[in-house]
Amino acid sequence: MRTSIATVSLSGSLTEKLTAASLAGFDGVEIFENDLLASPLAPEEIRARCADLGLTIDLYQPMRDLEALPEDEFARSLRRARHKFELMRRLGADTVLVCSSVRPDAIDDDALAAEQLARVASLAADHGIRVAYEALAWGRHISTYDHAWRVVEAAGHPALGTCLDSFHILSRNSEPEALDGIADIPGDKIFFLQLADAPRLAMDVLQWSRHYRCFPGQGGFDVAGLVRRVLRTGYAGPLSLEVFNDVFRQSEAAPTAVDAQRSLRLLQEEVGTASPPPPVVPTGVAFAELVTPDDRPVTALLGALGFTRVARHRGKPVALWQQGEARILVNSGPAERRDGTRLAAVGLTTPDPAGAARRAEALLAPVLPRRRAPEDAPLDAVAAPDGTELFFCAAPGADGPDWRADFADDTPAPEADEACRVDHLALTQPWHHFDEAALFHRGVLGLSPQQSVDLADPYGLLRSRAVSSADGAVRIVLTVGAAPTDDTAHAQHIALATDDVVAAARRFRAAGGRLLPVPANYYDDLAARYEFADGELETYRELGILYDRDAHGAFRHCYTRTVGRVFFELLQRDGGYRGYGAPNAAVRLAAQHTAQSVTGG
Amino acid sequence: MRTSIATVSLSGSLTEKLTAASLAGFDGVEIFENDLLASPLAPEEIRARCADLGLTIDLYQPMRDLEALPEDEFARSLRRARHKFELMRRLGADTVLVCSSVRPDAIDDDALAAEQLARVASLAADHGIRVAYEALAWGRHISTYDHAWRVVEAAGHPALGTCLDSFHILSRNSEPEALDGIADIPGDKIFFLQLADAPRLAMDVLQWSRHYRCFPGQGGFDVAGLVRRVLRTGYAGPLSLEVFNDVFRQSEAAPTAVDAQRSLRLLQEEVGTASPPPPVVPTGVAFAELVTPDDRPVTALLGALGFTRVARHRGKPVALWQQGEARILVNSGPAERRDGTRLAAVGLTTPDPAGAARRAEALLAPVLPRRRAPEDAPLDAVAAPDGTELFFCAAPGADGPDWRADFADDTPAPEADEACRVDHLALTQPWHHFDEAALFHRGVLGLSPQQSVDLADPYGLLRSRAVSSADGAVRIVLTVGAAPTDDTAHAQHIALATDDVVAAARRFRAAGGRLLPVPANYYDDLAARYEFADGELETYRELGILYDRDAHGAFRHCYTRTVGRVFFELLQRDGGYRGYGAPNAAVRLAAQHTAQSVTGG
Repeated sequence: MRTSIATVSLSGSLTEKLTAASLAGFDGVEIFENDLLASPLAPEEIRARCADLGLTIDLYQPMRDLEALPEDEFARSLRRARHKFELMRRLGADTVLVCSSVRPDAIDDDALAAEQLARVASLAADHGIRVAYEALAWGRHISTYDHAWRVVEAAGHPALGTCLDSFHILSRNSEPEALDGIADIPGDKIFFLQLADAPRLAMDVLQWSRHYRCFPGQGGFDVAGLVRRVLRTGYAGPLSLEVFNDVFRQSEAAPTAVDAQRSLRLLQEEVGTASPPPPVVPTGVAFAELVTPDDRPVTALLGALGFTRVARHRGKPVALWQQGEARILVNSGPAERRDGTRLAAVGLTTPDPAGAARRAEALLAPVLPRRRAPEDAPLDAVAAPDGTELFFCAAPGADGPDWRADFADDTPAPEADEACRVDHLALTQPWHHFDEAALFHRGVLGLSPQQSVDLADPYGLLRSRAVSSADGAVRIVLTVGAAPTDDTAHAQHIALATDDVVAAARRFRAAGGRLLPVPANYYDDLAARYEFADGELETYRELGILYDRDAHGAFRHCYTRTVGRVFFELLQRDGGYRGYGAPNAAVRLAAQHTAQSVTGG
Repeated sequence: MRTSIATVSLSGSLTEKLTAASLAGFDGVEIFENDLLASPLAPEEIRARCADLGLTIDLYQPMRDLEALPEDEFARSLRRARHKFELMRRLGADTVLVCSSVRPDAIDDDALAAEQLARVASLAADHGIRVAYEALAWGRHISTYDHAWRVVEAAGHPALGTCLDSFHILSRNSEPEALDGIADIPGDKIFFLQLADAPRLAMDVLQWSRHYRCFPGQGGFDVAGLVRRVLRTGYAGPLSLEVFNDVFRQSEAAPTAVDAQRSLRLLQEEVGTASPPPPVVPTGVAFAELVTPDDRPVTALLGALGFTRVARHRGKPVALWQQGEARILVNSGPAERRDGTRLAAVGLTTPDPAGAARRAEALLAPVLPRRRAPEDAPLDAVAAPDGTELFFCAAPGADGPDWRADFADDTPAPEADEACRVDHLALTQPWHHFDEAALFHRGVLGLSPQQSVDLADPYGLLRSRAVSSADGAVRIVLTVGAAPTDDTAHAQHIALATDDVVAAARRFRAAGGRLLPVPANYYDDLAARYEFADGELETYRELGILYDRDAHGAFRHCYTRTVGRVFFELLQRDGGYRGYGAPNAAVRLAAQHTAQSVTGG
């Protein structure tokens, strides 16, 4: 199906918005009136610009407060409409959105509304224009899609149809049967379909609509269910996104447009009107790659954690460190950015690397060059929204090049812990792209997002959302700071699971490693909350191990100091504990701030 | 009355919070459990730190989910309580907050709740501690203050009282009679009073409470009305602020604590328990002072606007430019910050400069040195939260030094427009202190705040809120960007009122001034919305004059280009128009972005 996006969904000038929509692959746009008024381009120039960019103008919007008015007021509406229809002719737009009136003096009289809308439609038809009438959820008298349709039907004018908007419909109706009325509308009378998702918030619907809409798949609405019903009517217009969102208003238009287009491709896959290559869910973490301007602090840390250098890249200053199933690449290459140690890439084990890359590309993930150097194995890789490079690595025995082939083995030292594995990776997201990140990981990688949680950092609330494969073999925790200024202020981390975190912590300390100190007050509180075996709590207190419990089991974890932007977590999951120790995050974050202010780091 | 603040209301480590509270003049604190758990200080050390800072620990909080439980669960609660009472002894805190249970398994049985609370109180009494029981607005079975009081009364234990919280009470009850029950509670059974204000939002009360509370006077609650009722019971405890707010969590603790203390001083003035010097409302704008590293661009602009240099400061590179009643100081002095032209100070005409300064000082406005140099007139001045210096200038004939005395007259050229005056000043506020700014201007200067409005900038929503004197002689528009990164990205401006904006615009252009170009599309829209006299719209279009209308009259305005961070607006108010042209802001902001991207400025 054709895809379209309202200019209000993107940030910047009209020109910037149109360019971003075109580059992201949209077929058309809805031009929002304010964007046109504020543009120095004449309507004819906007028309030409859209044509150059391969965009149709699918809708001009909105006209408001037009119908069900006293006759003298309506005459003024008609005058205004005539001006706008002339403008639309210059613009080359043939459909106008009319929203149901919110005027306090609007008359509660469907027959009058129908009669006046028919007169508007008649004037529109003279200009070759169709009128799409939409019920605002907070309309004065007409606020539901079925009511708007009854008025359109009563008007009986060929140039008058209805516009369905998923926000206005789903914000009022969470029961599927409330949508049954859609089937009663002939598809050719649905002149337009506007899509937005939104988180389920209990708040004033006007504020909710104006500030918190998001792209389909990023909220709590069943947008796909609605679209399926609309498609069954025979609707043949575009799927068009109309999203009012405070964050998108601030974000660069180009990535927002890509995020938007990706959401529509996933939506189309869900409703069956498009078939991107199927998802290939990763089955494990092949490696995590740290980029560092100076590999000594990080390799010292890895050594103390029990990792051994097992191989070196044949052509680059990249070393492979391993312990059990956990593999860390340390890249001190000159071609990389020199802004401190950071987690730059993740290798995901997958049964079909090429298939995973094809899906990622179809869903607009930037594809990275397969070979970075002539001698490299040709690995498929894409960039996540936060810039992290995701390498699709063949599972042992699967088809595809072996990333290990680029490495020459060192003589390996004995490993400390054969049960060691990467439990999860925590990646700080750019503030403006947190919702995009969750949709990306779900849509592109096939991981399941969990609930978003707030974590109290001493200097502001962080948000955190985990995405994981069904068996937990791949877990990524997406975090975001309290404000746009925090984009890189918060650390990334690599969490290593072990079968005995106490032993691992002791080995680390014996090897000269320093664990994050945890305040004594925390352990006094643990003593108040839980009963422990003799000596157990003293051990945790001595080592700085944090403790949590859920309905399934227990969780013990501790942290190393931070190197650059990266630290490590050692953890032990018992009895099927499913979380990430969120109740301990406030204490951990405060301890990290304390440690930083002490060391100046 | 004693004032107190919950540590959760301030940002940073516990040490930072305590220091900020002390410096702002608070007498005590409520220690929030998470702040203690995350602190490396032992309870005894926290106690000593508070004593050094002159702070009492008025409350330890919270204990949750303690009462109305099955006996085995309650036994666990008691065990937890014992640990906390021992902690409180070390801390030197004698009152603990217990919030009504939100546990799904809490039993709906007031007698059981009372019996278990009495047992908790009995254990507390053994430790010399009192229990203050509070109804959370979202408590499972007990969610109103009168219900909580009935349970406390039924328990009948001397160590058990109630805690009243203005958020929990006023978020559920906007009708004054719902507060009548407060009079039934003996003052000595109100163990604590927690205060927060909040904007009136239609949203889930838990989210509202956790993220959007604010200090009294910054929201929509009648906090003073509640406090008056509580005081009539004989309550003798502190007024304590407990504010959960996402912005305060990110802000530096010291200014937040000052903002908090100021709100309590204003609240005490309102309820009659304190009498700061009375407000002295300014009667006009004596001058606006621009600081500039290079005075040529700004004096060229002033010249084109019709201003004449009428005087020079005797000791500093400061010139006084005047037109009609509008006076602008241009300060190119080396002592000033060199970060581009900005609006740095405002002279406010007042009938009692010394009184105005006394009130400002009592309300914690930083007082600036009266003389900056030995030869200067000794003017009273304070700093606003955004750093703008406010000079209190004697009205002609009033007592107090004359700011003009520092200036030697130039030979004045004829002025262009004797009707010219400063209509308003628009000042960009630091993102974290927008609510503080409105309260400051209301409380310290006696100006009345209007509703906050959203303005659509192409790169994010701005918020804008005007404060003004009753007759409109002093109007200040406080604006704030979409994100903390925008603190200084948006321009300040000086709006000049004239009786004939068309003539003023023409004179400006004839003198070589350039007005902000306004897109033609805007005028096409005006033509659709209003009917104009012949040629009127063409004049506006030619000059770039924007137009608005309200129930009282019409508004015409246009803008100069921006110099540094400052631009000028020329405007004409007719028929008592009260606004600031907000419907035109989106077009103006977009035009300014366009102009900047064209000139690279």
